[in-house]
Amino acid sequence: MNEFQFLDAIRSKYQLKDVGDDCAILPFDSEKDQLLTADMLVEDVDFRIEWTDPRSLGHKALAVSLSDIAAMGGISRWSLLSLAVPEDLWNNGFLDRFYDGWMTLANQFGVELVGGDISRTGDKLVIDCVVGGEVSHTKAFRRSTAKAGDMIFVSGTIGGAAGGLELLEKGLKYDSEISESALRLIRKQLRPEPEVSLANTLQQLGIVTSAIDISDGLSSDLGHICHQSRTGAIIYADQLPLDPDLVFNFPPEKVLEMGLNGGEDLRLLFTAGPDNIRTAQETGSIAIGEMTDNAGCIELVSQNGRIRLDPQGFRHF
Amino acid sequence: MNEFQFLDAIRSKYQLKDVGDDCAILPFDSEKDQLLTADMLVEDVDFRIEWTDPRSLGHKALAVSLSDIAAMGGISRWSLLSLAVPEDLWNNGFLDRFYDGWMTLANQFGVELVGGDISRTGDKLVIDCVVGGEVSHTKAFRRSTAKAGDMIFVSGTIGGAAGGLELLEKGLKYDSEISESALRLIRKQLRPEPEVSLANTLQQLGIVTSAIDISDGLSSDLGHICHQSRTGAIIYADQLPLDPDLVFNFPPEKVLEMGLNGGEDLRLLFTAGPDNIRTAQETGSIAIGEMTDNAGCIELVSQNGRIRLDPQGFRHF
Repeated sequence: MNEFQFLDAIRSKYQLKDVGDDCAILPFDSEKDQLLTADMLVEDVDFRIEWTDPRSLGHKALAVSLSDIAAMGGISRWSLLSLAVPEDLWNNGFLDRFYDGWMTLANQFGVELVGGDISRTGDKLVIDCVVGGEVSHTKAFRRSTAKAGDMIFVSGTIGGAAGGLELLEKGLKYDSEISESALRLIRKQLRPEPEVSLANTLQQLGIVTSAIDISDGLSSDLGHICHQSRTGAIIYADQLPLDPDLVFNFPPEKVLEMGLNGGEDLRLLFTAGPDNIRTAQETGSIAIGEMTDNAGCIELVSQNGRIRLDPQGFRHF
Repeated sequence: MNEFQFLDAIRSKYQLKDVGDDCAILPFDSEKDQLLTADMLVEDVDFRIEWTDPRSLGHKALAVSLSDIAAMGGISRWSLLSLAVPEDLWNNGFLDRFYDGWMTLANQFGVELVGGDISRTGDKLVIDCVVGGEVSHTKAFRRSTAKAGDMIFVSGTIGGAAGGLELLEKGLKYDSEISESALRLIRKQLRPEPEVSLANTLQQLGIVTSAIDISDGLSSDLGHICHQSRTGAIIYADQLPLDPDLVFNFPPEKVLEMGLNGGEDLRLLFTAGPDNIRTAQETGSIAIGEMTDNAGCIELVSQNGRIRLDPQGFRHF
């Protein structure tokens, strides 16, 4: 049983209706809904201490949660940050720099740190970041509301974070003397930027029919939309905004694989009706395909033909 | 630097006004405030797998957060539960039983599980439980609002959870053939009951001038009230409701020490004006002393005289 299957089992067993999107949606008042998301990062599962720096880790710990709120079209308001901290990180300045990275991003988007918990541990660093946000009543973007015929958009380049991860796995360092393109990829892995501003714009435009953030990988996250919307999808390979830095560091077939299956880019993946293609494109988003009524089937169309795409994201180390 | 000092440093550095009570208080609307609390439990720091059972651990993981909401006079509404789970607990039924204990307590008090996160880890189990609640606008119980002359109350017996911990440390097992009194103490350590019902009653009565839950120990938690209210306190040793099961298992001087410094009983410690002694007592609460204007000084009065009490709670393993 993997994490997805376990969560599905828990959802089903306890009939948890509010679990299953990037955030839980709770009614706040007649005008607003509250959005809630929790993201736990575990050392040696979600990050490696020796590959990152404390400020980047603080940044990323919050960024992934801000991205969840953005994926629902909401605005992040407050956060609770809990840490289990190994003894050797307790007094060496790590925590100060970690909070500095976390707070810098929080201040950038007006998110208030309202509490949390901290505990020592003899083992690995564990970070749990909870963010609360708000969205106009019933206006949250959902995964379950795409329709056949809708166009599929991503908000920017994809695959960069996965490329950065692979470079780190090969032994490259963020601060070593490597190429600018490799540095940019590693930076996308270590300090991803949530699409907060775009989410606000899309919310105001009112064109989004479904959305998710690309945290597990395009194939996997599009799979979530298809599954929950009971639709299928066609993706056009030549439309995919593969990160341009990938081609300087990886062979072509690897570049496409990273774009399709690489996670953690924190891009928005959303759908909009065919009448709104231009409006979506004017936000900088890129049309990559369309939703179909072939439920559960994602096809990739390229000059080599048409292949069925299986979700392959959500790769940890 | 310990956890308290670290959190004080973070609070001060980033001017976090909403950190410092059992919960953060956020304005919700004109009628209600939202309460938020996070509690992280770390294996071998806050619990030992071999001393507890999965259902009790699930119960306790939620109970400590419900107690925080109760200590503010609020009602718990929803929760986010995040877990970092070691491989050996993943497929052995541990998680099912853990959720069963957690959900049983949640259902008892109408708390909805709305989300969370789960991750595997090669190391220790880490549990982070966030609970959101609500309270009438400006009616949250605070630590900072006690006045000299107020009477001090606890909601029930104290020291039992500390006694249970010591018995576990001595090697006694929850399910072994030990005395009923020892079993009751161990049960108080492993499955503490939050004072949810009493908190609601006290909120309706409107007599509380300050409150906290006894999670770190009476001396330590009363110290928090004194510090934040800029008051002192006198405690009468012969009024302390020491857990009656302690005397069957520990020598007298140890019993008093456990009552004063033992944590995790999840009792409410609160103050009320001298006019409301009877009303407070009618809730089952016990008057144990009074607040003074001798700021920061907690004195213990017994037949042996008067001694100054230093906060000594918050003992982990």
